[in-house]
Amino acid sequence: MRIGRPPWSDLVTLAQEVLRGSPQAVARLISLVESRPAEAVPMLRELHPHTGRGHIAGVTGPPGGGKSTLIDALVRLARRDGRRVGVVAVDPTSPFTGGAILGDRVRMQDHATDPGVFVRSMATRGYLGGLAPAASGAVEVLDAFGCDLILVETVGTGQAEVDIVRLADTVVVVTVPHLGDGVQTLKAGVMEIGDLFVVNKADRGDADRTAIEIKMMLGLAPNDRGWRPPVLLASAVDGTGVPAVLEEIARHRAYQEAHGLLDRRRKERRRQEILMIAEALVRRRLLDGGGSDALDGLASRVSGGELDPYAAAESLVRRAGLDSRTRL
Amino acid sequence: MRIGRPPWSDLVTLAQEVLRGSPQAVARLISLVESRPAEAVPMLRELHPHTGRGHIAGVTGPPGGGKSTLIDALVRLARRDGRRVGVVAVDPTSPFTGGAILGDRVRMQDHATDPGVFVRSMATRGYLGGLAPAASGAVEVLDAFGCDLILVETVGTGQAEVDIVRLADTVVVVTVPHLGDGVQTLKAGVMEIGDLFVVNKADRGDADRTAIEIKMMLGLAPNDRGWRPPVLLASAVDGTGVPAVLEEIARHRAYQEAHGLLDRRRKERRRQEILMIAEALVRRRLLDGGGSDALDGLASRVSGGELDPYAAAESLVRRAGLDSRTRL
Repeated sequence: MRIGRPPWSDLVTLAQEVLRGSPQAVARLISLVESRPAEAVPMLRELHPHTGRGHIAGVTGPPGGGKSTLIDALVRLARRDGRRVGVVAVDPTSPFTGGAILGDRVRMQDHATDPGVFVRSMATRGYLGGLAPAASGAVEVLDAFGCDLILVETVGTGQAEVDIVRLADTVVVVTVPHLGDGVQTLKAGVMEIGDLFVVNKADRGDADRTAIEIKMMLGLAPNDRGWRPPVLLASAVDGTGVPAVLEEIARHRAYQEAHGLLDRRRKERRRQEILMIAEALVRRRLLDGGGSDALDGLASRVSGGELDPYAAAESLVRRAGLDSRTRL
Repeated sequence: MRIGRPPWSDLVTLAQEVLRGSPQAVARLISLVESRPAEAVPMLRELHPHTGRGHIAGVTGPPGGGKSTLIDALVRLARRDGRRVGVVAVDPTSPFTGGAILGDRVRMQDHATDPGVFVRSMATRGYLGGLAPAASGAVEVLDAFGCDLILVETVGTGQAEVDIVRLADTVVVVTVPHLGDGVQTLKAGVMEIGDLFVVNKADRGDADRTAIEIKMMLGLAPNDRGWRPPVLLASAVDGTGVPAVLEEIARHRAYQEAHGLLDRRRKERRRQEILMIAEALVRRRLLDGGGSDALDGLASRVSGGELDPYAAAESLVRRAGLDSRTRL
């Protein structure tokens, strides 16, 4: 019975409520982005001119590295400076997401009563338009909402996670010394994308050696943007070293702005985002208007050994109106 | 200097070599599937009529559950029966893939000298046509090669992993008692896809309780195919309970065949596979013939606040020849 107030179903109003600072509207709009992206589009369009101010920092690394604890500590610190903070956790092993498979506890609940912190957990599957566009939409909403800092947590393994990390202005890679093969693991793809490395749980032994190994690897592959990624030691659980992490995140943003790199990076991000949305549109198109039935028929023929899956895929693509020049 | 032997570049020969039982040809063809799928297509087409005999079992579950150790034990056991076994590991945390982030060791190397075992590790990103189609191609090659049992290991978190698990005739979900929230974690998506559950490291305390919890959850959501997924206790590291796992995998296949379910499942797999290949074809099409430059221009306009990413994506899709009716 909300008398005298426009209903949530008035979607443009929902965007306006976000701009007016309503956390309920933020939650509602992100849910819409996740579940019915088509309906969220007009609102995201309305919010678009109000985005671009917040600093988006991706926090990634192997499970068990204490990413969530570090984020928790960064949020506390940024709040002390009076900054508005958003967190988007798309890490299935994160306690924010309810996974908690490595025994962490949800400490983030402490922030539940703080109106200056907005925490959003996202599942890692089940989004109609794909996970990365959904995460991207959530970040846009938080940006328009006025978050100064938006932290995006991913586990840093699969392609979907890398797509999400690409959203960030600054990528923080978190590892721990006792992983032993931690550096080995980092090699598998996140080494290249880190703007800032944190060896967390630095109280647990060989942190110095891990930091040196990371520096050596970075030394071998110079950063073409002229930025030398710092390697920091921290113990997020008691806050040691966390102020330096927050300072380096800010310094990386300032560096990019001073060298005209932020615009370039954001343009690249937009490129990825447009492509992801386009792919989601096309996926829909392949299945619409009888496409799904056509696919069933093709699947039967492939199962029966009558047709190979590649010829079947070409046929499906042609059916959707794309010509046969399309080749893998 | 391989005189008197057709060169590998003769691609149809490569497919024939696979059918003749050459493990070198298998390795070579899988590499081709990964790196240059377009060139692999004619060979996969040639192999297609020779596939469908092997039993494909997906092994999935949260990191640290001992999936790799279980696979190792299953391979040993299947080899004792003289069966030819293939392993495709697409789990970034698997020691087969070199991740080893949880301290496991590569025990699989023991099988390196056994010609009846073919082990293939796949990275979790970087494939032109996508990870799932690459994994699917690898499984096809191993099937045509004559593997009786093909084990596919994934970490069971992201969408890409679920896409891969869909390749399987039988899905084995592995968890461990000490994860505590293990069942909680399983809820997040793998509960629905398991045909067989293994509580591994059953020597470590509360295995019985975990098994009961899983059974209760399964009881609440009856399997519409009439198959009651068994929940087994095992300790893969010393082989305890592993024979029962192998027997249940075989029993699940027999059950499906007896009830006409295997064909249905494989048809559904083909459906997914065709769709994945079609999407890869379309992605290529979006960027070909000037599409990449067009995307750059659109990204600049979105960055400048002049255009929103959704309108840009629609424009890119139209450019590739799809009409504007396409909607998310």
